[in-house]
Amino acid sequence: MQLVKAEIIAIGDELLYGQIMDTNSHWISQELDLVGVKVVRKTTVGDNRTDILTAFAEAEKRAKLILITGGLGPTQDDLTKPLLAEYFGCEIREVPEAVEAVTDFFRRRGREITPLNILQGHLPTCCTYVPNEVGTAPGMWFEQYGAYWMSMPGVPYEMKKLMKDFVLPKLPHIFQLPVIYHKVIKTVGIGESWLADLIKDWENALPEHIRLAYLPSPGHVKLRLTAFGTDRSELEQQVAQQIELVMPLINNYVYGYDEETLESAIGKLLKSAGKTLALAESCSGGYISHLVTSIPGSSNYFNGSVVPYHNQFKQNLLGVKAETLNSHGAVSEETVKEMAEGVRKLFGADFGLSSSGIAGPDGGSAEKPVGTVWISCSGEGFTEAKKLQLTQDRMLNIQLTGVAVLNLLRICINQNNK
Amino acid sequence: MQLVKAEIIAIGDELLYGQIMDTNSHWISQELDLVGVKVVRKTTVGDNRTDILTAFAEAEKRAKLILITGGLGPTQDDLTKPLLAEYFGCEIREVPEAVEAVTDFFRRRGREITPLNILQGHLPTCCTYVPNEVGTAPGMWFEQYGAYWMSMPGVPYEMKKLMKDFVLPKLPHIFQLPVIYHKVIKTVGIGESWLADLIKDWENALPEHIRLAYLPSPGHVKLRLTAFGTDRSELEQQVAQQIELVMPLINNYVYGYDEETLESAIGKLLKSAGKTLALAESCSGGYISHLVTSIPGSSNYFNGSVVPYHNQFKQNLLGVKAETLNSHGAVSEETVKEMAEGVRKLFGADFGLSSSGIAGPDGGSAEKPVGTVWISCSGEGFTEAKKLQLTQDRMLNIQLTGVAVLNLLRICINQNNK
Repeated sequence: MQLVKAEIIAIGDELLYGQIMDTNSHWISQELDLVGVKVVRKTTVGDNRTDILTAFAEAEKRAKLILITGGLGPTQDDLTKPLLAEYFGCEIREVPEAVEAVTDFFRRRGREITPLNILQGHLPTCCTYVPNEVGTAPGMWFEQYGAYWMSMPGVPYEMKKLMKDFVLPKLPHIFQLPVIYHKVIKTVGIGESWLADLIKDWENALPEHIRLAYLPSPGHVKLRLTAFGTDRSELEQQVAQQIELVMPLINNYVYGYDEETLESAIGKLLKSAGKTLALAESCSGGYISHLVTSIPGSSNYFNGSVVPYHNQFKQNLLGVKAETLNSHGAVSEETVKEMAEGVRKLFGADFGLSSSGIAGPDGGSAEKPVGTVWISCSGEGFTEAKKLQLTQDRMLNIQLTGVAVLNLLRICINQNNK
Repeated sequence: MQLVKAEIIAIGDELLYGQIMDTNSHWISQELDLVGVKVVRKTTVGDNRTDILTAFAEAEKRAKLILITGGLGPTQDDLTKPLLAEYFGCEIREVPEAVEAVTDFFRRRGREITPLNILQGHLPTCCTYVPNEVGTAPGMWFEQYGAYWMSMPGVPYEMKKLMKDFVLPKLPHIFQLPVIYHKVIKTVGIGESWLADLIKDWENALPEHIRLAYLPSPGHVKLRLTAFGTDRSELEQQVAQQIELVMPLINNYVYGYDEETLESAIGKLLKSAGKTLALAESCSGGYISHLVTSIPGSSNYFNGSVVPYHNQFKQNLLGVKAETLNSHGAVSEETVKEMAEGVRKLFGADFGLSSSGIAGPDGGSAEKPVGTVWISCSGEGFTEAKKLQLTQDRMLNIQLTGVAVLNLLRICINQNNK
């Protein structure tokens, strides 16, 4: 089935010059995606007559639904309304109902209305007036040139209310909408290309109506399955079947689905296992503790952490042996193991995690270049360690160490549960 | 003077589906605005041949500089590279230097390279290869059809590095750019409207060619002065004079200029004073340690930190009295003071900082609602504490606590130096 195509046009110089981030288009995309309308393009143009008219003409060629935000203020540089009137060849006339609404908006706030604001109740004769209960600029709905057009203010909560109250409820009545179902598989510890290699046969065998996308971010790759059809539960089933097929290939790398994060997945694993956690962070400097404690309720399984930024504290607080530090150095398998064991004892936790490395940009050597990191996980009866060779970028190294340490814990818990 | 026109094209279904927010285009807009290049349009298209080629053709009609992000992964759904080659009518061939770079990227990580990744070193013959040091997809620079084109990965930190290292430095050589001079004053601990009130007379007296912008972010407000003219050193002088005029009004809130962050400013203060720092983080859960250690060379002044997520560790590690916890609770002036003093001793530091509060969403009470946070700074002969009433949002509370604690330290150091 042919999907209804939509375009989003955001209007305003402040968006082009980076003074304001356009969060509206992102939100609208998500809402349309949920109801099975396919956004084929997002465009941002400035407060410029030619650019705006061109954007209208281009959009009309491609889309049946055109959603426009911004450029509806009462001032000279707000061009959306006059240009829509010009584009559709109709006049702007007073709409008493709209004038009353904007007047009332000011009355309720005990503020005097200005002539400029009264003009906000004057609308193109070819549009349907859509009341804006939370602002002064009305929504305008057009059915012109075989497409549906909606003009909304750029203020996010005003736009959202008009979308929820008017546009979204209207769509099923004017379009035959399909069902789209998304499922995102979250993986960690494997690069995009290895993942692609692992699952290429499965990917090539996917049915026409199920699409796969790779969404990488540092240390993670998300696999997004998108299924198109008419029956949601059917699609859910078909996607579930595909996931069953692919899981044996990638099981070890999958930590969750959809909104799950690695730190929230870790939290669930620890909770369900009734286990607790402690951290000794050297090169990651508190970042992993921050990730863990960013999850509500983490106090149920997180006992605490230490950032021993100098060797003396690795000794005094964590009981790392001076001899170990002298003979192997702070960035070594032996040291991170003793750190993990030490912090586990210190906080009486089931699992102790540690990191020690050269985050950079300084401190590297030929033998241990910047990006050399050792991590360890210690639990009842075991202590594992792993060496990472990361990047030249300090922040990225801290971030990647965090992912690697949490992933090591995930693996240790899973082995522990077997 | 006619400004150079630029367009930004973001490519990827995930952007149209609203699965990922396009922050790249916003960042690029800001960077181009700073150097006087005028972004006339931003376009987002999906992983679709026709849509991408149309976007290229439309952009070419309008802009001299076309910046493209995304669609460069090694997988089947990444179309940018082949379509650029098709659009400019050239082949894709192996670039040994690029293959070597991507191979080396994997070698440095002790990982095996896949055939898919090797192909990332194959580029259109009509482009200039631009090395990507922090990722596997190279940048591609084209000078075609009277415009300059740059294709970059969609991963923000990869794109930013290519922009900073290659694109932005190149612009003055290929375009005649206006002289624009920016100076940003970084303030903390005062809201935008109070700041505006403090400096309104100064602001109103600013000369025509110097503009002021307020750039607020959680806990901070940046004041950006932008001067337009023909002679840079002249503009620098004029802006410096304006800053001299305004500083007496806002001195207490200013921690630096331009790229300075609060954590880097703190680092400089500690270094120049030859002082060291230790942290005891309860509700901030390691976030402040992360901020401090994100600064290269922080090991020179940061001794370490503890995240005592349960009361017992506040007692055992920091020596907080059981009596204090029982009579006043963990979230109290008395407790944070003992935490700050305790961690200062534990790490033998000149300054001890602490935080304890209810980050939320749970744990609030009538007397101590979510968002109640106590912070403290202890040094030679003094211990100061401050109460914060923050928000309902856990992450925002953690973030705002971090800013408040570092600002408290900034104030303590400055008083200490007097």
